[in-house]
Amino acid sequence: MVEEMTMSTPGRGLHEFTPAVRAVVAQAGVREGLCTIFVRHTSCSLTIQENADPSAKHDLEVWLNKLVPEHDPIYTHTAEGPDDMPSHIKAALTATSLSIPIMERALVLGMWQGIYLWEHRRAAHTRHVVVHVGGA
Amino acid sequence: MVEEMTMSTPGRGLHEFTPAVRAVVAQAGVREGLCTIFVRHTSCSLTIQENADPSAKHDLEVWLNKLVPEHDPIYTHTAEGPDDMPSHIKAALTATSLSIPIMERALVLGMWQGIYLWEHRRAAHTRHVVVHVGGA
Amino acid sequence: MVEEMTMSTPGRGLHEFTPAVRAVVAQAGVREGLCTIFVRHTSCSLTIQENADPSAKHDLEVWLNKLVPEHDPIYTHTAEGPDDMPSHIKAALTATSLSIPIMERALVLGMWQGIYLWEHRRAAHTRHVVVHVGGA
Repeated sequence: MVEEMTMSTPGRGLHEFTPAVRAVVAQAGVREGLCTIFVRHTSCSLTIQENADPSAKHDLEVWLNKLVPEHDPIYTHTAEGPDDMPSHIKAALTATSLSIPIMERALVLGMWQGIYLWEHRRAAHTRHVVVHVGGA
Repeated sequence: MVEEMTMSTPGRGLHEFTPAVRAVVAQAGVREGLCTIFVRHTSCSLTIQENADPSAKHDLEVWLNKLVPEHDPIYTHTAEGPDDMPSHIKAALTATSLSIPIMERALVLGMWQGIYLWEHRRAAHTRHVVVHVGGA
Repeated sequence: MVEEMTMSTPGRGLHEFTPAVRAVVAQAGVREGLCTIFVRHTSCSLTIQENADPSAKHDLEVWLNKLVPEHDPIYTHTAEGPDDMPSHIKAALTATSLSIPIMERALVLGMWQGIYLWEHRRAAHTRHVVVHVGGA
């Protein structure tokens, strides 16, 4: 089963969508298998991170912005705005696809793991994520 | 086939577990397929790296500790210790899941590739890794 | 279906091979499924990045070389040349495997996404990439 989902992001930061992925897995109805999540963009990405304390995702965002600042004089790819090239770099350093096994009809996520779309652009965007579920 | 394995890490560093993954693949008995490895934590991660010269994994560890130091004044997520927030960042920069094709009943790992659990916390930990094998 | 492909890289930089992956998917003939790409080396890696403006891949290369320079005094793994240890670090920060769902017999890549082998060594190399296609 393959399902495309559309998400609206309010701008930069980690936006959790674990419930939407769990819903696709439930609908697929496989007992044992593999769920793969893929983001169809190069200026946002995916990550699995702590879902308990919001300070963790805040710090991830601040740290990555410091590592990959806007207006670095090395950038030549500047036509799409000062936040575009940093977004591509951040996407390359994190994940475009993630795979999570399924056991007993559920994702094997750890207790503190949530699935996040990491928006790297400043403006609100509509993002497309594809979820594939295989198994039996 | 999905199998959960438990690993004890002695603290920070890259800990190889290629033989344990090969054992799951052998048990699954598929001739051609895909093996996916998933770690159920957000303060350790996975990587495939050189398994020949131990100096490579030593340098990876030292370099990443320099890039993501403890006690960075930007951290607000400090309740779980000075090594916790750096661990989440390191996990985001490396991998939570890895997929390796299977041909002729064996992982297609290159000659110098080993599969590692990268422990980012200072203390010893018990870690849970799930291995999925699909195919026929 | 699993297929190994051999690629010649002229040295450092992002080298696109999307058409070769599409050809394997077409040959596999699955309507809905999952395509996984795996690189059998630890001194080059995989990334999905913008395929429109070549300045984006140029900046990715320049930025990563600045983050992970040669001749860092922390390196002890130096026997294979000054570009070897930086290559392992760059591989750890990017991807060794990537998975892309297949819908209606095609990869669900976004309009601006291309699949790249990221060569991190200075010299030309022959690289081996394995593509697995599952589904029905």
